[in-house]
Amino acid sequence: MGLPEKQNAAVKEGEGSSSTAPVKQVPVPQEPGPGQILVKVNWSGLCASDKSLIHDEWANSGIKMMDSAQGIAGHEGAGEVVAVGPDMGHKWQIGDRAGVKWVVSVCKDCEFCTNGQDELQCPKQLNAGFSAPGTFQEYCLTDGNYATRIPDGVTDEEAGPIMCGGVTAYTACKRSAVKPGQWIVLPGAGGGLGHLAVQYAKAMGMRIIAIDGGEEKGKLCKDLGAEHYLDFTTSKDLAAEVMKITTYGAHGVIVTAATKEGYATAPHFLRPGGTLVVVGLPKDETVIAGAPPILLALRRLNVVGSVTGTLKDVDEALDFTARGLVHPILTKGTLHDVDKFCQLMNAGKLPGRAVLKVAA
Amino acid sequence: MGLPEKQNAAVKEGEGSSSTAPVKQVPVPQEPGPGQILVKVNWSGLCASDKSLIHDEWANSGIKMMDSAQGIAGHEGAGEVVAVGPDMGHKWQIGDRAGVKWVVSVCKDCEFCTNGQDELQCPKQLNAGFSAPGTFQEYCLTDGNYATRIPDGVTDEEAGPIMCGGVTAYTACKRSAVKPGQWIVLPGAGGGLGHLAVQYAKAMGMRIIAIDGGEEKGKLCKDLGAEHYLDFTTSKDLAAEVMKITTYGAHGVIVTAATKEGYATAPHFLRPGGTLVVVGLPKDETVIAGAPPILLALRRLNVVGSVTGTLKDVDEALDFTARGLVHPILTKGTLHDVDKFCQLMNAGKLPGRAVLKVAA
Amino acid sequence: MGLPEKQNAAVKEGEGSSSTAPVKQVPVPQEPGPGQILVKVNWSGLCASDKSLIHDEWANSGIKMMDSAQGIAGHEGAGEVVAVGPDMGHKWQIGDRAGVKWVVSVCKDCEFCTNGQDELQCPKQLNAGFSAPGTFQEYCLTDGNYATRIPDGVTDEEAGPIMCGGVTAYTACKRSAVKPGQWIVLPGAGGGLGHLAVQYAKAMGMRIIAIDGGEEKGKLCKDLGAEHYLDFTTSKDLAAEVMKITTYGAHGVIVTAATKEGYATAPHFLRPGGTLVVVGLPKDETVIAGAPPILLALRRLNVVGSVTGTLKDVDEALDFTARGLVHPILTKGTLHDVDKFCQLMNAGKLPGRAVLKVAA
Amino acid sequence: MGLPEKQNAAVKEGEGSSSTAPVKQVPVPQEPGPGQILVKVNWSGLCASDKSLIHDEWANSGIKMMDSAQGIAGHEGAGEVVAVGPDMGHKWQIGDRAGVKWVVSVCKDCEFCTNGQDELQCPKQLNAGFSAPGTFQEYCLTDGNYATRIPDGVTDEEAGPIMCGGVTAYTACKRSAVKPGQWIVLPGAGGGLGHLAVQYAKAMGMRIIAIDGGEEKGKLCKDLGAEHYLDFTTSKDLAAEVMKITTYGAHGVIVTAATKEGYATAPHFLRPGGTLVVVGLPKDETVIAGAPPILLALRRLNVVGSVTGTLKDVDEALDFTARGLVHPILTKGTLHDVDKFCQLMNAGKLPGRAVLKVAA
Repeated sequence: MGLPEKQNAAVKEGEGSSSTAPVKQVPVPQEPGPGQILVKVNWSGLCASDKSLIHDEWANSGIKMMDSAQGIAGHEGAGEVVAVGPDMGHKWQIGDRAGVKWVVSVCKDCEFCTNGQDELQCPKQLNAGFSAPGTFQEYCLTDGNYATRIPDGVTDEEAGPIMCGGVTAYTACKRSAVKPGQWIVLPGAGGGLGHLAVQYAKAMGMRIIAIDGGEEKGKLCKDLGAEHYLDFTTSKDLAAEVMKITTYGAHGVIVTAATKEGYATAPHFLRPGGTLVVVGLPKDETVIAGAPPILLALRRLNVVGSVTGTLKDVDEALDFTARGLVHPILTKGTLHDVDKFCQLMNAGKLPGRAVLKVAA
Repeated sequence: MGLPEKQNAAVKEGEGSSSTAPVKQVPVPQEPGPGQILVKVNWSGLCASDKSLIHDEWANSGIKMMDSAQGIAGHEGAGEVVAVGPDMGHKWQIGDRAGVKWVVSVCKDCEFCTNGQDELQCPKQLNAGFSAPGTFQEYCLTDGNYATRIPDGVTDEEAGPIMCGGVTAYTACKRSAVKPGQWIVLPGAGGGLGHLAVQYAKAMGMRIIAIDGGEEKGKLCKDLGAEHYLDFTTSKDLAAEVMKITTYGAHGVIVTAATKEGYATAPHFLRPGGTLVVVGLPKDETVIAGAPPILLALRRLNVVGSVTGTLKDVDEALDFTARGLVHPILTKGTLHDVDKFCQLMNAGKLPGRAVLKVAA
Repeated sequence: MGLPEKQNAAVKEGEGSSSTAPVKQVPVPQEPGPGQILVKVNWSGLCASDKSLIHDEWANSGIKMMDSAQGIAGHEGAGEVVAVGPDMGHKWQIGDRAGVKWVVSVCKDCEFCTNGQDELQCPKQLNAGFSAPGTFQEYCLTDGNYATRIPDGVTDEEAGPIMCGGVTAYTACKRSAVKPGQWIVLPGAGGGLGHLAVQYAKAMGMRIIAIDGGEEKGKLCKDLGAEHYLDFTTSKDLAAEVMKITTYGAHGVIVTAATKEGYATAPHFLRPGGTLVVVGLPKDETVIAGAPPILLALRRLNVVGSVTGTLKDVDEALDFTARGLVHPILTKGTLHDVDKFCQLMNAGKLPGRAVLKVAA
Repeated sequence: MGLPEKQNAAVKEGEGSSSTAPVKQVPVPQEPGPGQILVKVNWSGLCASDKSLIHDEWANSGIKMMDSAQGIAGHEGAGEVVAVGPDMGHKWQIGDRAGVKWVVSVCKDCEFCTNGQDELQCPKQLNAGFSAPGTFQEYCLTDGNYATRIPDGVTDEEAGPIMCGGVTAYTACKRSAVKPGQWIVLPGAGGGLGHLAVQYAKAMGMRIIAIDGGEEKGKLCKDLGAEHYLDFTTSKDLAAEVMKITTYGAHGVIVTAATKEGYATAPHFLRPGGTLVVVGLPKDETVIAGAPPILLALRRLNVVGSVTGTLKDVDEALDFTARGLVHPILTKGTLHDVDKFCQLMNAGKLPGRAVLKVAA
């Protein structure tokens, strides 16, 4: 097959917020074993979770990148199959296009894998860039039974960020239970996850109130399909503005912002019976996503957690792009840009989703 | 008709936690107008919410008994129709048995009244003992279109506490989405709401893990249908015990306890995809019902609010008692016992539900 | 108020398929009583059900226009309030725009009226053009608690056909349970109900396979949002074509055609777990909507009935038009055109929905 | 391992309704390959579907036992693992108790296997006694990834019939969407599937109206938990009796009887919004399960198909037996009784479920 022995990878160095991920030469993974395929990573998205894992942001919640990941983050990979395990030939051919996700492998045997909708809870799952080496390397060994087939009409550079960012936005929209013609509020609508949520919500027939800061974000949100834009830098009372538009409040709100304040204000956008979707994962482990009981009970609100999506969800999310309805806005770079992009994210200055050209 | 001019009522006096509700002579309400009936209250339950309103416990959350209630709390009334409004004769006859609930009147016209399941959110609703005089009086004027018909097989003294306590427990069980054969955890299972929740959950086919303190409560819970009993006075790790019984955690938990600690521990009893039902309404307005985002999102938990129940829910809740499946444990008294029972509640020493003999 | 004493109405004459509905002078209804309003009907749609009732098509199923309807069909009325009952002033003002529907009045008291989603099953309901005089008259007395407020942005001539045709198409789309991005098959997509279903399905994010006959219908369906068009006049195997497009079959199919053949073929368009929505009501009372048990059980199909929509559904359906997403194609006439339009319908030659200018 | 070379099996002989299944000596299956286990079948249920396949009853619907089944029917097997494939050691040990079901193997890769709830639709599935040799043999080779682990507290002779009959009854109850406290009608409640449905419905909190013929069946149904029993041999109008008990009709009905008449009467037992579950599979391919459109649409009924259950459903069904809530009534025999039991079934005279002692 002629695979090289060494490859480039961005490898975590250091502990805590000062950690970095410089590019190093590391061995190319071994030949795929039973159930495995080797994917040459063409493009990989850089998700906020990659930053959180590289910088040990969730250490206080007990979550740190494991040794088994070999310091290699990344879970939004898209590329090409270059080697196929001995029993995977019925499914994968060399040259097939494949995607690598946050969940890279599940047992297909436990209660969660066999009862539908919930393989994401498989206790034996492996996670790219957390418990298994991720996609910030040129060649990534992965489970052929759980890799995603990338459909025609979706480029690798768009497919990468859909593997996590896209499907996260899409699944959150589904979890909101907002029906076509009903209102959804999207704080941070101009951001990396938010601008994807606007597009999925639009394609799902929802009416969108986008919240973000500044006129440029406002124009972006409206161009993508938002019906109203609320500018938090000028609004005096966001909840009152939402009520004015919707009479009783919105049917759903998706909190992608990983901030205490984001979680504190969101329940006040909701109408009785409405749903708050919890997506953003703050550093601060004292944040509680929810609402005061007197508000939550009297208005019969729902607060629901959402994270990435199942194998099926990813196929669905990709299909929206194949049909031309959803396109991530990309800030492009290479493996050498991981640290720079993490800093831009921390400053809230990275437009859209970051995506890295990995293999040449 | 020969109604008396004066009647006994327990009337709120004072402000804040030192308030009392002594029995006074007050006028009997006027003849029922259009849409109204006059109910002679035979028995009235005394709910923790009555105590909270008499003692201004939710004042920091902006909720205080309104002047229109004339100081008369009570929203679990059961008795007999003694006068019928001019246009209510098609529905109510003198001598019919009727129940008065927390929601006494809705507009039947707004979005919430007309879209099903949600009349409880009607912005024009009146509430017994909050915005309208409640059931701590011998004769209670109420809306004939929203009063509940009490079925054969349910006594007034049982029907009263079902009007709020019973239906609250029943609706919370429904909101939990726990299916027959699945696990529900009931902290405070031996208490006023808890012992009703045990019975409804049992009748709905759920498997019950009851949590409370002491052997006596344990015996009660098991007698009522709990499969396991965890004693918080002796357990070292309730969550670990729940996990041991259920492998992955329970499918649902209902928090009836109005405490910060109750809300902090409950999410840890849940399996992925499980549901926490918010019922208890603490004095402390800083309590947030919910969970850390990283727990809520990664396990895809649901946190849902529940409060009393609709007209239809109440009919269903009563039906379980008519069929002999659910019986409130009653601590009986009279209108003169309101303050004494409030003190027992505060001390956590009131067995079951308090119910007052009102009219002779 | 100056109402005339006489008005024009199209009144049923004769029995069976030879019945007609000539225009006659009949008394203007009395002043509105309690709970009522008088609506001057500006435009009224002419629904296939009006034709079926005028021609006694469902007599073998035991359904005939009742004497109480006074021979006046019509249940898609839109116009202006010209008189208001003594207790309706809080809700309606003279000059308000109001719509009259198939269900004109419900009791708001029975199990179906109070349990949500199902007031359409109220056993005390009155129906326009069936048990109460309908909208084929200039002045229509109706229930002020159940009339629909027509929103800005929807003209009377569009609002009329939405009162039944529009909401029927919309509710059928909801009943299909097809999610955004999934496939729905719409036989008769170019017809009166079908072309509305295409537009609602599109606005709800569904992928549409339209079926009808001829190139003109094909162009219409594609213009309205269908992704594929199958021409039954040229197709050799419609089910095979659906399978080719969808791999496993469509997620839903809505049968608006009132024919035996329509019901026989529809189940074969479905993927496992898919849903067939029953809307069309054939003359032939021996038609069974469903599927062979071996198909229905092994593929776990769903066959669900749908009829008009609730008060809330109608508000939602109108909102899509107010937002510019759904527009009925109209064939316009006057009260004098009832018989002509019925004949065109029978011949399958009435484009879109028929709508009659009623009051001058 | 010391497995014998030959074993007993009941093997289909002949074509059509005169076919038989005499016991013959056939080779013991080979050593388990990758993914497989060999189960020594202790007991096997004999399902009506086994009879239908042996007698070619569904030939007109295009369904006949395939050559790959080697003439060996049976899909309700329970026994002991006697050999384990090379890669199954992490899951199965020799001596483990295992169950073999109608679906014996799925691909775990297609849309149906990966989207939850629907692996039963996997196009690559193998079926015991249809496309793979079934459980009417002493040693049955099966897929270790899809075999069921039999829990403590369930004997093999009870576990067998639960593999199909039990889970079919249980899944049908779930598909009915009948909630605790609501009414379900069970025609044929005293039969093989029916008496299991009574027990599951009871354990799920439903109120049961059992229908069957004769006093003995009536006593059985009531003993198992039915609240009412209607005797079709003496009733003049079953639908009227159901209406009298339930006011508006039942919330659900499960049709287990494979007869035209059973499907014709069932919709008339339902209240508006109710659900008819299609389970029984008639010989007569002209039977349509459903209802006249005018009934189905106006009452917004649901007709849903149900067949066996998923891997997860079977675990749940077994759990009800382990908890002592559901026990099949068994008519016991041996492999030599297949033909006799089929004749008893045809005559409607086989009490409960037939179960065969297979291996010594």
